[in-house]
Amino acid sequence: MRSWFILFCLSLILFSATAEASYCSIEGLPFVRNISELSQDNFGRGGLSHITLAGSVSSGLKEVEVWLQTFAPGSRTPIHRHSGEEVFVVLKGSGTLYLASNSHVKYPGKPQEYFIFSNSTFHIPVNDAHQVWNTNEHEDLQVLVTISRPPVKVFIYDDWYMPHTAAKLKYPYYWDEQCLQATVKDEL
Amino acid sequence: MRSWFILFCLSLILFSATAEASYCSIEGLPFVRNISELSQDNFGRGGLSHITLAGSVSSGLKEVEVWLQTFAPGSRTPIHRHSGEEVFVVLKGSGTLYLASNSHVKYPGKPQEYFIFSNSTFHIPVNDAHQVWNTNEHEDLQVLVTISRPPVKVFIYDDWYMPHTAAKLKYPYYWDEQCLQATVKDEL
Repeated sequence: MRSWFILFCLSLILFSATAEASYCSIEGLPFVRNISELSQDNFGRGGLSHITLAGSVSSGLKEVEVWLQTFAPGSRTPIHRHSGEEVFVVLKGSGTLYLASNSHVKYPGKPQEYFIFSNSTFHIPVNDAHQVWNTNEHEDLQVLVTISRPPVKVFIYDDWYMPHTAAKLKYPYYWDEQCLQATVKDEL
Repeated sequence: MRSWFILFCLSLILFSATAEASYCSIEGLPFVRNISELSQDNFGRGGLSHITLAGSVSSGLKEVEVWLQTFAPGSRTPIHRHSGEEVFVVLKGSGTLYLASNSHVKYPGKPQEYFIFSNSTFHIPVNDAHQVWNTNEHEDLQVLVTISRPPVKVFIYDDWYMPHTAAKLKYPYYWDEQCLQATVKDEL
């Protein structure tokens, strides 16, 4: 009976170690990975499901990162900007992109609103403040996101009139936080 | 009657100019673009449908490019390599990835074969020779491709035993050929 208990404990330890490894790295996963078997999490952001399909921290990529994100009705990204190029492909649902393209010198200012929908694509001009919001009450919004310069450094705004200089640097970003040991430095 | 004819000719000229503009550039297209309304072509490669969702030549991106490609049964990419990072997401169908990861010093050598399938993802290690082949006789293979360092420069092999030094530089690549005016230079 005691040996069963020891075996049970060992299995638990082994399982938790494997889970952590596959969460932070693709090591141990097949070369061609079934997306439905990859770790997903909301990383403390309500209504979000994020999966890193290929990334800097998990796969050692240096130039691009690809995410699959699902936003429950009403959920949204923060208002943010970054210096990497970002391309969206909407796979399911619909919502609204808010984009401060003609940004005021000192703050983003009132954003333009764009309807985004299943089978649409758009890209975010570098350093423009933006926000993706599932404004469809009835359906999840699912997007495939490509972003350059990983791991991403994001500047977050409380609102569209917050000065650029007051935007908060979030680095490591939500999904890299638990895996990336990094010194956070201030920068504009 | 003559004025109608002039109007007709003017419309034709205008239409052809618009068609060319939207093929080579997203200028004039909405910011959020309906993928089913974007230009697709096979660029002389039988069985291929290629759409650049966001790219260097069409959208002025400098770091990433995103493509939607559909391979009819039996169709395939050439055996090729490039220095950009490449991430695949398989949206529909299935097929085979051939990848010479443990490349011989002088030539790619016999590739490993990986089954790729709907809702799977993988990335190509930089500079590894590879080939994607729709080996499923019954279904199209559709993939979403992210690639860094656009516009891409590709080295093409006739077979897996062709020396790296003999691989042919293809630049501009098929879909950039008609829009990108570039001097082709030899490089390894």
